[in-house]
Amino acid sequence: MGNCCEGVERFFGRHKNTNIRISLPAVCFVWQIAMIILFGVFIRYDKESDVRKWIEYKKSHNITSDSENDFYFRYPSFQDVHVMIFVGFGFLMTFLKRYSFSGVGFNFLIAAFGLQWALLMQGWFHTLDPNDGKIYIGVENLINADFCVAGSLIAYGALLGKVSPVQLMVVTLFGVTLFAVEEYIILELLHCRDAGGSMVIHAFGGYYGLAISWVLYRPNLHQSKRLMGSVYHSDIFAMIGTLFLWMFWPSFNSAITNHGDGQHRAVINTYLALASSVLTAVAISSMSQKKGKLDMVHIQNATLAGGVAMGTAAEFMISPYGSLIVGFCCGIISTFGYLFVTPFLEKYLKLQDTCGIHNLHAVPGMLGGFLGAIVAAAASVEVYGQEGLIQTFGFEGKYATRSVLTQGGFQAAGTCVAIAFGLVGGSIVGFILKFPIWGDPADDNCFDDEVYWEVPEDEETLPPVLEYNNHMIHKHQDISESNFSVEQS
Amino acid sequence: MGNCCEGVERFFGRHKNTNIRISLPAVCFVWQIAMIILFGVFIRYDKESDVRKWIEYKKSHNITSDSENDFYFRYPSFQDVHVMIFVGFGFLMTFLKRYSFSGVGFNFLIAAFGLQWALLMQGWFHTLDPNDGKIYIGVENLINADFCVAGSLIAYGALLGKVSPVQLMVVTLFGVTLFAVEEYIILELLHCRDAGGSMVIHAFGGYYGLAISWVLYRPNLHQSKRLMGSVYHSDIFAMIGTLFLWMFWPSFNSAITNHGDGQHRAVINTYLALASSVLTAVAISSMSQKKGKLDMVHIQNATLAGGVAMGTAAEFMISPYGSLIVGFCCGIISTFGYLFVTPFLEKYLKLQDTCGIHNLHAVPGMLGGFLGAIVAAAASVEVYGQEGLIQTFGFEGKYATRSVLTQGGFQAAGTCVAIAFGLVGGSIVGFILKFPIWGDPADDNCFDDEVYWEVPEDEETLPPVLEYNNHMIHKHQDISESNFSVEQS
Amino acid sequence: MGNCCEGVERFFGRHKNTNIRISLPAVCFVWQIAMIILFGVFIRYDKESDVRKWIEYKKSHNITSDSENDFYFRYPSFQDVHVMIFVGFGFLMTFLKRYSFSGVGFNFLIAAFGLQWALLMQGWFHTLDPNDGKIYIGVENLINADFCVAGSLIAYGALLGKVSPVQLMVVTLFGVTLFAVEEYIILELLHCRDAGGSMVIHAFGGYYGLAISWVLYRPNLHQSKRLMGSVYHSDIFAMIGTLFLWMFWPSFNSAITNHGDGQHRAVINTYLALASSVLTAVAISSMSQKKGKLDMVHIQNATLAGGVAMGTAAEFMISPYGSLIVGFCCGIISTFGYLFVTPFLEKYLKLQDTCGIHNLHAVPGMLGGFLGAIVAAAASVEVYGQEGLIQTFGFEGKYATRSVLTQGGFQAAGTCVAIAFGLVGGSIVGFILKFPIWGDPADDNCFDDEVYWEVPEDEETLPPVLEYNNHMIHKHQDISESNFSVEQS
Repeated sequence: MGNCCEGVERFFGRHKNTNIRISLPAVCFVWQIAMIILFGVFIRYDKESDVRKWIEYKKSHNITSDSENDFYFRYPSFQDVHVMIFVGFGFLMTFLKRYSFSGVGFNFLIAAFGLQWALLMQGWFHTLDPNDGKIYIGVENLINADFCVAGSLIAYGALLGKVSPVQLMVVTLFGVTLFAVEEYIILELLHCRDAGGSMVIHAFGGYYGLAISWVLYRPNLHQSKRLMGSVYHSDIFAMIGTLFLWMFWPSFNSAITNHGDGQHRAVINTYLALASSVLTAVAISSMSQKKGKLDMVHIQNATLAGGVAMGTAAEFMISPYGSLIVGFCCGIISTFGYLFVTPFLEKYLKLQDTCGIHNLHAVPGMLGGFLGAIVAAAASVEVYGQEGLIQTFGFEGKYATRSVLTQGGFQAAGTCVAIAFGLVGGSIVGFILKFPIWGDPADDNCFDDEVYWEVPEDEETLPPVLEYNNHMIHKHQDISESNFSVEQS
Repeated sequence: MGNCCEGVERFFGRHKNTNIRISLPAVCFVWQIAMIILFGVFIRYDKESDVRKWIEYKKSHNITSDSENDFYFRYPSFQDVHVMIFVGFGFLMTFLKRYSFSGVGFNFLIAAFGLQWALLMQGWFHTLDPNDGKIYIGVENLINADFCVAGSLIAYGALLGKVSPVQLMVVTLFGVTLFAVEEYIILELLHCRDAGGSMVIHAFGGYYGLAISWVLYRPNLHQSKRLMGSVYHSDIFAMIGTLFLWMFWPSFNSAITNHGDGQHRAVINTYLALASSVLTAVAISSMSQKKGKLDMVHIQNATLAGGVAMGTAAEFMISPYGSLIVGFCCGIISTFGYLFVTPFLEKYLKLQDTCGIHNLHAVPGMLGGFLGAIVAAAASVEVYGQEGLIQTFGFEGKYATRSVLTQGGFQAAGTCVAIAFGLVGGSIVGFILKFPIWGDPADDNCFDDEVYWEVPEDEETLPPVLEYNNHMIHKHQDISESNFSVEQS
Repeated sequence: MGNCCEGVERFFGRHKNTNIRISLPAVCFVWQIAMIILFGVFIRYDKESDVRKWIEYKKSHNITSDSENDFYFRYPSFQDVHVMIFVGFGFLMTFLKRYSFSGVGFNFLIAAFGLQWALLMQGWFHTLDPNDGKIYIGVENLINADFCVAGSLIAYGALLGKVSPVQLMVVTLFGVTLFAVEEYIILELLHCRDAGGSMVIHAFGGYYGLAISWVLYRPNLHQSKRLMGSVYHSDIFAMIGTLFLWMFWPSFNSAITNHGDGQHRAVINTYLALASSVLTAVAISSMSQKKGKLDMVHIQNATLAGGVAMGTAAEFMISPYGSLIVGFCCGIISTFGYLFVTPFLEKYLKLQDTCGIHNLHAVPGMLGGFLGAIVAAAASVEVYGQEGLIQTFGFEGKYATRSVLTQGGFQAAGTCVAIAFGLVGGSIVGFILKFPIWGDPADDNCFDDEVYWEVPEDEETLPPVLEYNNHMIHKHQDISESNFSVEQS
């Protein structure tokens, strides 16, 4: 299936047209205009961001202080999440020696587009007002839009270097759409809890990207091998991404949990799981090399696995040592993935995963989903209190009689739904991306910013050598002449 | 006018004295000591940061929770603004291949000086206590000081690479002074609203910098052409600046708006305008190049235009789709500016604008000012509610009877005041900077960190070549000798 | 004493075994497993992060709003501190040309380990529940854990480039332990105030690192001289660290001060001291060079001295101009330290201090401690109010009758305790680190990432030269041949 068009591709391989002068602007304009129209029809300020409604709401609910506005509970976390999306994901993808512009630049482009579409899609599925058909947005919607975009950015990690920006826009359009649907099924229909998105963001995004990459398999990718690695400085740029993701992951997992203890606990759990991941990632990385040397790829990625895996369980009473155990295991699993699974996938499953999202998002996300199921099933009145159980798992309304065991089952089912959406959706989107109209690069032209960017001539490498070239020629000419005369005399 | 001293300049051109060993320390010491004295005379903690007064205030106002302290409403936004000023503006100016030290370093210097002077100037004009002649400061004053400094940092963008740090200190001293005066006129006398500073920060700062740069026109700047571009890594450093500006711009525009819905709405509007800007900036950038390649200059700058343009209107009920439209237009206008207006200005108006602040700050700021006027004039009781109108536009006290139409007129007038201050003030400051005592670089020495910094010998380029040089000489000597003997035999 | 094993070292110098394939993973696993067990026994959520307890607490204390949860008072500051620890300290240590991986990577490793151990150690000493022997943690404990780790990270600054990651783990294990003890003595027994940690963090961490470095003196370190400096881009990476430290230092000094005016005032004071430091650091740096050129080392470090020195006094009523004076003096002292004291220490005291922590942490921290003593002793009822004095200095319970003068005396004593702990503890740890089992690098191998990291072959430097090498050889061969024939004819 992944290879069906191989013959055709081989034929077109060296003649790919990467000119996106028409397609990229067209897509940007059409979609941005569509966004404006749809926002005009559907999107309004909610009661906490609309001056009239907030004044009325305060009066009717006898609220005296503006500090009750949800803005003050969520805005600091929102900004941290925002940094993760744009600087974290963006700079994590600058590690390739000549693809940093695209890593950070296309991440910027698709996130900025995706979040608009996410506000609409999530609005239609979750918060559409049944009376007037409007979507009322506040800071929590902005956080959710950023979350939704994260799914597509994860998928970009698998595709990095092998697709055009137009293809990425398509990946994002469908990614956000699929995200909103699976999220609706998981959070609304199955009534799962998934505040940090182990299932809906990481498992979905990871398998979505892997499926696309599998369909887009390039048998001759080795032709771009010269550009596949990192250089010294690009690895340090990538550490900027890693650290901002690592530091702000507690905000990611707590951004939309319950006010008060919910946000507080999610932060503590995520903080501990991440710290634990760092130690085991370092340990396995060192063990895997002959002289115990560390590999930047592991430090840049596997240290984050604990945060991914705590996406569901962070708001539960998993207890501090439980968080440490989760981080411990995921640091190991993720590093092993980079060492053994990614090469295996490429060799035997024909799956090229540039950033190793299989090890950082897909597997830890899936594990996090099942972990959440187990922790939910093990919840008890002794630990949570009666009211606490209701608050934490939302056992209200028609879910008032649901038991924690049932909840655990639904959580596990939700994880499967997320994976299924990722795999099936990704396969379909992959086939769409195979049409030869999207301007993707040839096999010997991957991982190269030159294809889509005006890259400055790098004075540091080229000119000195060339200049020196001429200089040396004359110098040696003199030397050989003088040598000659010495020998002659 | 800009060329009157050209002959003199040409004469002195190659003999410029860039030694600032006396002038820079002198200016730093004199001004810092002056700051200490003036702070001693004027500046005190306000009622929310003074332990005695806060205890008394809580008692007298029956406040039971410290969460009512303005600190908790504004500090997260303040820190975001702080990051924009020092990392955002600083790193945005690292894009030149050999001027990154100066870009980020002088930005640091003048911001640190400017914010002290801004606390005084803004204090004298806005918050001087009439009873005891003291200025009482809290977190809002810190934000305003950062804002005030932003005006001068914008001006630095036009001058980047062509002035000495001493000149920048002068630019900042006058910039902050002018800022405080125009801000007083616009916000107090005209009673305009301008929370994110489209007028008072961006339009003023932009035209201030452009006017200075026009007066300081260097006809022989092409002599430094070799240093004018970027290199691969410097462009990625600049993206750090871009992204932190982009991400935190919602905090910038909401930092000093009304508590509650005001801050909430300003964030949503700015977030949307920025997202929209990204798509149109990318579209125009791609359209403008033969093969549809993107230009880093546009991605680094024009993507921010939406945030600038929403500086005034962000707190108004412009509605979400309105914000998208603003970003849409400004992304286009700003990118066009980089493509056509900056070269035009340089060629025909003799105006050298290194960072293109004309396109990122001056024009979007001006448009933002007029946009604010229109949105204010279109405000209605239906949308804002009676109380909401009063709150949003400050129709209290002697402004209680002002209509929204009048308000719109004053907003437009305010924009003109800001531009006028920028142009006139900048011209005067430009002339002051022409005195040959400030240590500015010669025309063939611009954009070069070597002039003002101890720059490390770059092992990556120089030593390997030199070392290799010797090595090669010996090697080739051997070769030529052996060749020789071969030929001889 | 520092030289006693010199003969032995010289012998082993070139044969050091830097293979850490067993030791590093072993240490990571053993310690992480120990953490899990100890957390399982001791650590629990506190009443504000435990769902059951928070619900009960709200009911019993009649709290209606979750905004009273300490999380909302401290989390934004916590995240800023977190950024300082991981990005600030991490990137500040990337300035060396070939040690950036280790700078940011080992910082990451030891901080992630240290904060877990810190939660335990600080818990045992400060917050162990006497009834059930548990440690209940919330966001304030996370901040304190980050603070505690900072002490060891400061010590890393003195050792940068000269030790193995295993040694750093040992430094951190003992560093955190000593920190918790001296903190207990200073804050609990002596009842000092030290919210920003001038004494307990900076003075202790500084002297701890200096003492270790003194014991580990390497007489032949000049053999690594080629790697000791910076390159252009590594200096810009270091500026990322500097700026995030500088910007977020107000959060550092205010993170655990009293709610309300306490946090508010600490921010204002630190902000002003830092601004003042920048100007005097620049002034002295410029004065010290022949042509007034600035030195990046000073800008990267001495600009931060004001923040260090305000660690104790920031929460007191030192008044805004007082803060400016502190920054003014410390900027000068710190820059002088880099110019004269660090070379002096190396030459005459046999003390190699890679990052100059003596000038940035040890001395400003010590001065900050004594400054705090003076400001405390000068406190008066007129300025603080009766209640304010009690709140600010904790004159409650058995300290209810302590006078401000006595408090000042205890503050000064606390500073001495911190320094003593640093010096004695550091000397002992230094001797432990001299055992030849830790995998530290040889003298001619210091400051080199190659020892502990898989470093990518840097296409930018190596391949062009090598390729060119061969290319040139052939070229010159031709040339010399042709030369020869010319001469022959």
